[in-house]
Amino acid sequence: MSWRDNLIKIEPYVAGEQPNKTDFIKLNANENPYPPSPRVLAAVSNFNAESLKKYPSANALPLVKAIAKREGLNPENVFAGNGTDDVLSLAFRAFFNSKKPIIFPDITYSFNTVWCGILNIPYETVPVDENFNINAKDYARENGGVVIANPNAPTSIGRGLDFIREILDNNRESVVIVDEAYVDFGGTTAVPLLKEYDNLLITRTFSKSRSLAGMRLGWAMGSAELISALYATKDSMNSYPVDSIAQAAGAASFEDEEYFQSTLKRVIATRDRLTKELRAMGFKLPDSQTNFVFASHPKHSAREIFEYLKTKDIYVRWWGKPKIDNFLRITVGTDEETDALIAALKDFI
Amino acid sequence: MSWRDNLIKIEPYVAGEQPNKTDFIKLNANENPYPPSPRVLAAVSNFNAESLKKYPSANALPLVKAIAKREGLNPENVFAGNGTDDVLSLAFRAFFNSKKPIIFPDITYSFNTVWCGILNIPYETVPVDENFNINAKDYARENGGVVIANPNAPTSIGRGLDFIREILDNNRESVVIVDEAYVDFGGTTAVPLLKEYDNLLITRTFSKSRSLAGMRLGWAMGSAELISALYATKDSMNSYPVDSIAQAAGAASFEDEEYFQSTLKRVIATRDRLTKELRAMGFKLPDSQTNFVFASHPKHSAREIFEYLKTKDIYVRWWGKPKIDNFLRITVGTDEETDALIAALKDFI
Repeated sequence: MSWRDNLIKIEPYVAGEQPNKTDFIKLNANENPYPPSPRVLAAVSNFNAESLKKYPSANALPLVKAIAKREGLNPENVFAGNGTDDVLSLAFRAFFNSKKPIIFPDITYSFNTVWCGILNIPYETVPVDENFNINAKDYARENGGVVIANPNAPTSIGRGLDFIREILDNNRESVVIVDEAYVDFGGTTAVPLLKEYDNLLITRTFSKSRSLAGMRLGWAMGSAELISALYATKDSMNSYPVDSIAQAAGAASFEDEEYFQSTLKRVIATRDRLTKELRAMGFKLPDSQTNFVFASHPKHSAREIFEYLKTKDIYVRWWGKPKIDNFLRITVGTDEETDALIAALKDFI
Repeated sequence: MSWRDNLIKIEPYVAGEQPNKTDFIKLNANENPYPPSPRVLAAVSNFNAESLKKYPSANALPLVKAIAKREGLNPENVFAGNGTDDVLSLAFRAFFNSKKPIIFPDITYSFNTVWCGILNIPYETVPVDENFNINAKDYARENGGVVIANPNAPTSIGRGLDFIREILDNNRESVVIVDEAYVDFGGTTAVPLLKEYDNLLITRTFSKSRSLAGMRLGWAMGSAELISALYATKDSMNSYPVDSIAQAAGAASFEDEEYFQSTLKRVIATRDRLTKELRAMGFKLPDSQTNFVFASHPKHSAREIFEYLKTKDIYVRWWGKPKIDNFLRITVGTDEETDALIAALKDFI
């Protein structure tokens, strides 16, 4: 018997490569190519760092109020956490305490399965169809909870309000989590359904559309009952999760809707141009409602393209997993980065 | 059957009060009364917030290197997290996967029991003696892990290296966590024992001695094997826990040993003066090796004193729990705050 026997046995999640060099094009983590709003930059540089000697506001109230105002909700319907990963793993712990398996698509955010593993939550995956579509009727079955990303990743496919409503109508007895990490890039939010369904939790992130990946901020919206359960869970793990600077920067992000909309427009325009160019080269890809595209080529393996792009210092994402091993997930960068990507792909093909 | 049946049932941890006013003396959260080093203030105000569009360095390597250098360790022996609470809860998940109960003192950091609850870890508490001392021989019993805070909280009592060595020698088959949150204020660190015991994990925080409670930063030190298990667990929950600004501020804190030592000296001098004054008023309290004192008065109930101090806008900590319900935990503030506290106590007594 040794202490080693009691160590956790776990397959670590592998994030996109972060090569040890600075001069490369990074299109593998769905980061925003544009910096956060000047209001955010000012909030950071003007932050009174002497105040860091005190603990942060425990429930991030000024930030929560800014989010609630933007989304037309009350503060008791909003929970802020240390990145969507933090919010989602707390939500899994808070809501999925059934012996029945929770269900989610087989092709979706890959953290779902690792959280289930680490939190001992039974789960079953539901296959997407041959076009990577999630079918709402497949979610009309007994379960301990439902998790849907809309738009979905890495497929980039977004669905409308009817789709979410059908899933909710089929799941009155489960908490349904809708992860809207990418919704700002053209998806449809389920926020209007919060009034009707008190078992609906929506999650969002500052990492993509709000250009704050380095800050670790995310939030959840739901009935006061769900939000209270999230707070109770959070308070048991860690009283003060969102640091003071992140609270200030996050709130400042909501003071600048104009900048926010303008960077969204730029990313969407570049994405649509990239989509056309890729199709002209023979790539197959669904219309994206996100800040990335999910593309395959009938004549070239995704792995070959992935490796070729690396030799050109362009990093995209490729998994080599069943069903998606011939697809690349390519983040929408600046126009210059996208031009370099297109040129490299043209050379290759 | 309702989704409500699957919500977590949990008693939330209750932190020290944060009254909704600004003009009060806050001695209830063991915060440092002095601001962080000017180097930290500069690191925050000069931080390039445009870089927040990218995810942080996943393993906080520059910060980890700064810690390793200060403690005479290699980077593979250091893990950085989002506050000691984050580090400890990951450590519980990573190391305590035995069916045997983990053991820790009945009077110690109160998060231990909530983490065991949330992570389904069996535990037993071991009584401290009538003087609140932890006896190493009580930890010579079968267990799934050991957690000791040294100095201990809320008792303020610190023990020497022989004490930790005895616990380690009695527990070759368990991971032993030594939480050194308060060690900089006069305690004895177990770092020299890391060379001999690869089942020892030491945790530290930036929140107390380094005046960065608002930043949420903590770290762990141990064998490469323990540190790898922490990374694997962290990577499964959340790829990027320590935000970019916190990494920069934390590293800057280690660039200024002189400032660090000077604020420690001030806190220790104020603590020793406070100790003498309290004893002169009839309070009983152990010698503190922390930035707080743990005091009771033979003639006045702790609750009465606690309530009285609140009427004077002075907030200290009182729990009303068995064994410690006649004790106050009082954080060492500035000299002015301490004078106000002493004056109020003299008035009361």
